[in-house]
Amino acid sequence: MTALPPALASLTASLDPKSWSVDPAELESHARDWRGRYAGGTPLVLKPASTQEAAQMLAACNDTRIAVMPQGGITGLVGASTPANEVVISMKRMNAIRDIDTANESMTVEAGAVLQTVQDAARDAGKLFPLSLGAQGSAMIGGLISTNAGGVQVLRYGMMRELVLGLEAVLPDGRVLSGLSGLRKDNTGYDLKQLFIGAEGTLGLVTAATLKLFPRPASVSVAIAAVPDPEAAVSLLGHLKDRTGGAVSAFELISGFAMELVCQHVPGARSPLEGNPDWMVLIELSSAEEERAGILMETALESAFEAGLVSDAALAQSDAQAAQFWALRENVPEGEKAHGKAAKHDVSVPVSRMAAFMREATQQAEALVDGSRVIAFGHVGDGNVHFNLAAREAGAGEDFIARAAPATRLIYDLVDKHHGSISAEHGIGILKQAELKARKPVEVELMRAIKAALDPNNIMNPRILTGLT
Amino acid sequence: MTALPPALASLTASLDPKSWSVDPAELESHARDWRGRYAGGTPLVLKPASTQEAAQMLAACNDTRIAVMPQGGITGLVGASTPANEVVISMKRMNAIRDIDTANESMTVEAGAVLQTVQDAARDAGKLFPLSLGAQGSAMIGGLISTNAGGVQVLRYGMMRELVLGLEAVLPDGRVLSGLSGLRKDNTGYDLKQLFIGAEGTLGLVTAATLKLFPRPASVSVAIAAVPDPEAAVSLLGHLKDRTGGAVSAFELISGFAMELVCQHVPGARSPLEGNPDWMVLIELSSAEEERAGILMETALESAFEAGLVSDAALAQSDAQAAQFWALRENVPEGEKAHGKAAKHDVSVPVSRMAAFMREATQQAEALVDGSRVIAFGHVGDGNVHFNLAAREAGAGEDFIARAAPATRLIYDLVDKHHGSISAEHGIGILKQAELKARKPVEVELMRAIKAALDPNNIMNPRILTGLT
Repeated sequence: MTALPPALASLTASLDPKSWSVDPAELESHARDWRGRYAGGTPLVLKPASTQEAAQMLAACNDTRIAVMPQGGITGLVGASTPANEVVISMKRMNAIRDIDTANESMTVEAGAVLQTVQDAARDAGKLFPLSLGAQGSAMIGGLISTNAGGVQVLRYGMMRELVLGLEAVLPDGRVLSGLSGLRKDNTGYDLKQLFIGAEGTLGLVTAATLKLFPRPASVSVAIAAVPDPEAAVSLLGHLKDRTGGAVSAFELISGFAMELVCQHVPGARSPLEGNPDWMVLIELSSAEEERAGILMETALESAFEAGLVSDAALAQSDAQAAQFWALRENVPEGEKAHGKAAKHDVSVPVSRMAAFMREATQQAEALVDGSRVIAFGHVGDGNVHFNLAAREAGAGEDFIARAAPATRLIYDLVDKHHGSISAEHGIGILKQAELKARKPVEVELMRAIKAALDPNNIMNPRILTGLT
Repeated sequence: MTALPPALASLTASLDPKSWSVDPAELESHARDWRGRYAGGTPLVLKPASTQEAAQMLAACNDTRIAVMPQGGITGLVGASTPANEVVISMKRMNAIRDIDTANESMTVEAGAVLQTVQDAARDAGKLFPLSLGAQGSAMIGGLISTNAGGVQVLRYGMMRELVLGLEAVLPDGRVLSGLSGLRKDNTGYDLKQLFIGAEGTLGLVTAATLKLFPRPASVSVAIAAVPDPEAAVSLLGHLKDRTGGAVSAFELISGFAMELVCQHVPGARSPLEGNPDWMVLIELSSAEEERAGILMETALESAFEAGLVSDAALAQSDAQAAQFWALRENVPEGEKAHGKAAKHDVSVPVSRMAAFMREATQQAEALVDGSRVIAFGHVGDGNVHFNLAAREAGAGEDFIARAAPATRLIYDLVDKHHGSISAEHGIGILKQAELKARKPVEVELMRAIKAALDPNNIMNPRILTGLT
């Protein structure tokens, strides 16, 4: 254990010993990201147990100009939570479910609460907290808010931004913004909470939030269907929406190659469809009425067969089988990771442009990078596809990502052409700063003006979002 | 016609003659509000025909420090669009529907498009734009965005904030933020459009927006039901939600006194229920399936009768009758206006607190102000009630509002006690600035920091929101 520099030593001197650590193993656990792409380090991890303590910590850091990196479950994908010598402020001790108000359909939780714990608490109260994504066993609410997380239920329930009713945040100078409101309607000036949602920890520290709850659906039906191509997938979505109203709660595309990698690398994974079709969709319907989701699914798939939109389909016959179908989709990143390094692109385009974008991008990217193959999957119902370029052969390393760089540029140019976004749900972090600055100059100027107004000493995550020069 | 002061004269000299006016009648039409509570005046109305022209105008005003007030349909209720010598920039000439993308369920419209025109265009394309409120025949999209309008379909579709996918805005210095995106997911830094939504024109000028569209429901059912008290109304809402899933698209409370005023003052208005009950709700159910809304309504009302939540009910038997029922609710402000001046409070509390808030506030306010009576109506499903205090006798003038001032304070204190908001959907404007500053000091500090960052010369609606000292 090395001695802390004087500024940090005097910061820790005033704190509860349980509220900070310089233990090398603990420091190391806060310095790595899930994908292993960002090597970092930190001299000190702060662990506030309360909002008041968090405020005291930030005020002290602000006074002495110490740069701070907020951390939740460290499951982000763009390098926004890997420190490069910043002091880490980890929310892991602030993990309480403060309150559940079923009549108001809301719950108040602290930033360090793990998503799955929040989902479980909502379920135990007879309600649904719908945010759902692969990392839900480790991702924390504060991080999910700071990255405006998406996931597989956005189509019906919206992104994290739509699920936050109120927010408590500590400003860089230690002032507390106490907005833990359960209100659906509050037009009292600028909606300040919006600033902290998706800000990647650059404007303040989210310490707690009041979240929207929903009635639990009485019936859910899950199917995996083979479709001829992405164009048919988009048409199928329209077909299902028209015939089932608001019942489509998820609509996830899985390419044949993505399914192949899951079945090859994830123990027990097995596709329910024969002969690994080129394109599949996982469809989930939900209904407030018992049995109704299953009935709607059968009727809608039948007419989709007749319309030529679907060539084969498997309906989950039990909750266990539905979970297996979902696991196939959720494990695509695991299968991909086991196959080797890939150049990842989390992009969105208007739904009406999706098929054209995917056709052009696949053709041009595979032609540009020798021995490459697109892995495409994701939330096509929201216009969001994870459009990744992998090596055909297993075992590719970081050198493949370097070799794929021109394809990344090409893909982002096609995204621009189709009026899309170069980051649909993962954010900017370190990874996409150069692209953001090149493509959105006026927006970046405005973001910097806001950052300077809220964090004049630039202590909050200074390298992240627009922070690199 | 008086001569313009030199700064304004040189501004207009560079503009197309169709793009500005000093005609006294036209100036006068831009100087009054709907309620007749704010007397104003302006030396000049600017009328840009394009985003580029609007940018040119703002840049010129910024250079010469001329204060500007953006205007739409001037239907706001808090004085945010009545000029006190500011130059008015009216969006009435920028009223085009630029694009409808049905496959992406989005449409792009200019700020001066009237809400009803937008609703009609969506319907003609087979889609629904759900924002709906009394002033829809004059209210314009830019104003509806700048005030984050609510209305009667918030329960199902959200406020304006939830309906805006992308925004085009001119910054005070003439830079254009071009964010007319039809994307559901775009995590590229701070969500800048959120700043302009609900900002009451203080941060920039909204010139166009891309709006969310929805499938049109295949069946809609409307009923007016008598409930014993507001508590039962809230329970009835839970009852309906549980039994119909997402089908409840509106749930509006109408007090007996409110209904009485409508029937008395609005030609042709007639309550469908016998004996004017103390409390009524207008219920609307929508379904993607033909006939289904009516079936759901009958079943749910039947069980609500049995549970003692409803004592009488009338189901609309035709579209025309549904429109008549809606007109009763929509005409409450007209009936109220004809009755006399009233102290108006557009407040919200968590749905779980609604009944307690209304009981306490009614009792205490009526006791405090001699000869007063509460008129309560509105969007109880969102926790939002228009809680107004009128004189029992017709013909009250501004002096009644002055006499009711202590009740306003009392009502806002009760709102605070129940963790509510002093402005659910109408905004702050001039009317509620003092209350906002007293009740949310940290928020106001932050708002001012943001205002200074985006509008350093303070030319955009300088008196509005936090502008009065």
